[in-house]
Amino acid sequence: ASLAPNAFADLPTIKWRLASSFPKSLDTIYGAAELLSDRLNKITGGKFQLRVYAGGELVPGLQVFDAVQQGTVECGHTASYYYVGKNMAFAFDTAMPFGLTARQQNAWMYFGGGLKLTRELFKPYNILNFPGGNTGVQMGGWFRKEIKSLKDLQGLKMRIPGLGGQIMAKLGVVPQTLAGGDIYPALERGALDAAEWVGPYDDEKLGFHKIAKHYYYPGWWEGGPQLSFYVNLQKWNDLPDAYRQAFETAAAEANLNMLAEYDQKNPPALMRLVKSGVKLHAFPKDVMNAAFEAAFALYEAEAKVNPSFARIYSEWKQFHALQTQWFKVAEANYANFLYSRK
Amino acid sequence: ASLAPNAFADLPTIKWRLASSFPKSLDTIYGAAELLSDRLNKITGGKFQLRVYAGGELVPGLQVFDAVQQGTVECGHTASYYYVGKNMAFAFDTAMPFGLTARQQNAWMYFGGGLKLTRELFKPYNILNFPGGNTGVQMGGWFRKEIKSLKDLQGLKMRIPGLGGQIMAKLGVVPQTLAGGDIYPALERGALDAAEWVGPYDDEKLGFHKIAKHYYYPGWWEGGPQLSFYVNLQKWNDLPDAYRQAFETAAAEANLNMLAEYDQKNPPALMRLVKSGVKLHAFPKDVMNAAFEAAFALYEAEAKVNPSFARIYSEWKQFHALQTQWFKVAEANYANFLYSRK
Repeated sequence: ASLAPNAFADLPTIKWRLASSFPKSLDTIYGAAELLSDRLNKITGGKFQLRVYAGGELVPGLQVFDAVQQGTVECGHTASYYYVGKNMAFAFDTAMPFGLTARQQNAWMYFGGGLKLTRELFKPYNILNFPGGNTGVQMGGWFRKEIKSLKDLQGLKMRIPGLGGQIMAKLGVVPQTLAGGDIYPALERGALDAAEWVGPYDDEKLGFHKIAKHYYYPGWWEGGPQLSFYVNLQKWNDLPDAYRQAFETAAAEANLNMLAEYDQKNPPALMRLVKSGVKLHAFPKDVMNAAFEAAFALYEAEAKVNPSFARIYSEWKQFHALQTQWFKVAEANYANFLYSRK
Repeated sequence: ASLAPNAFADLPTIKWRLASSFPKSLDTIYGAAELLSDRLNKITGGKFQLRVYAGGELVPGLQVFDAVQQGTVECGHTASYYYVGKNMAFAFDTAMPFGLTARQQNAWMYFGGGLKLTRELFKPYNILNFPGGNTGVQMGGWFRKEIKSLKDLQGLKMRIPGLGGQIMAKLGVVPQTLAGGDIYPALERGALDAAEWVGPYDDEKLGFHKIAKHYYYPGWWEGGPQLSFYVNLQKWNDLPDAYRQAFETAAAEANLNMLAEYDQKNPPALMRLVKSGVKLHAFPKDVMNAAFEAAFALYEAEAKVNPSFARIYSEWKQFHALQTQWFKVAEANYANFLYSRK
């Protein structure tokens, strides 16, 4: 079999623009959209072209949702929890504090009803969502002073957006929302006492370890945060089926790929940070417990007033509990044994 | 844009046969090949056809390697550790006892050099390998009597093939190799004292819980076993690039998909087994430690006499140690906290 020179000649040439929420400097996250674009190009012999724009190039990073909804761009790559202001339920498409791990999020989305439920949520907004990457559990952030118990959080100014920030506020923290580039100077001049970003690989590049030596784990507000591809529904419906199939498959590959890439990049970055003098700490138990209780109190309260949140939450909560019952058996025992030996 | 009726008319029609090592009854594993076939068909508008044959239909399940090598079939779906008789290093393409978890295996294969190293190993055999699914950590198997310490393993007849069996033999077990369908009768009539298979979802279907009440974890010989797609190298080289791209992408999707599907199916199966009276046990600490030491002694000994094993092992060991250093921090702390609360 040989390739005919114009193998895809009869397929329409389609040029789409993808608006990413992310800067190119977050190369692992940003790269998922480039992988998608590259694959679609190669599978279709250059006929389905996706041009990727970094956050701010076409639309501001936090307006990707609106841009896809309105059809300003055909598709986007973003984190749905940026849009909890529209509906808190969008966080299920990324991460709920104390929620699913990366593996569990995939199980939920692809097989546990998550994709179906979140697509119902997105449909009135004219958006079709696809899982589009995961960072794995993030770190809990950089603190200028050690946190020995819950009372050390009182009045602390911490850069932590979203639901994590809402829960931290219940614990006495004064949460702040700052873009990535603004965190370092604020931390340096003392306008911030603490800041969370992503994990060792991305954090190292921003240099937080030079000014805040205490590095906490885990980022309980992001136990397995999923990124998402969004496609405008009309544009999707107009797409030839072969292109839709290619898109769905390549999006799944990008989803898998990002987690694998982070898992390869984070370990050496953590070792370098520790060598440079960073002190690693687990959050104190009373902080973890108070945050856990505040998180589920928030969900229960929201479920009472937000029917679309309640619908997803009741299924998600049950799935989460079953996953925990399973993962605490063989997976946890295997992993914890290896940790004890090395 | 609309779909021209013969969109892929200029692409050659290619019909391949895929020999699976697995029976259709192992639906989650077997299904990965069907997913691959289905996607390729749809992406190419029916021009790239992959017909999937279950183990034994075209070639015996354990001869998929040879069939792909010789070009009897164009491609296959199998577990590379079936072929440790050719070279123990093939186990790196599936699972080494006390080796990488499913997430870590993906990080190693796609970004940590694993795919490159294993492809060098396969190349003289005329085979190109692709990750093609993962079950997650398996269970440690079904025992008729409780295992309280290492001495309870002495003389035990256990169905456990491969490297796990070799290591169990060093612990005093008499390992047996039996096909899936032969295990239940052997266990029932007392020809076996114990048997390992996969995990709750697959084990439940074979009914072991009716005759052996003690269900152990973890399956330390399979901490994240990867399945693989094999393609005959000449057939691959003859493939149009668009089809190669589609194959690689769809194989990655199938890889992601299998783990997510197992993670969705195993938890309720485990709950049903426990409800039916099965007793869950962790392997005793002395068993785990003795097995761990026997495993790494085996690898060190093999590395001394097998250069291709030594080459992969030295990189793999370093990667494994770094992964452990990272996963024991945020991932372990997050997971263990959730287990303590639920």
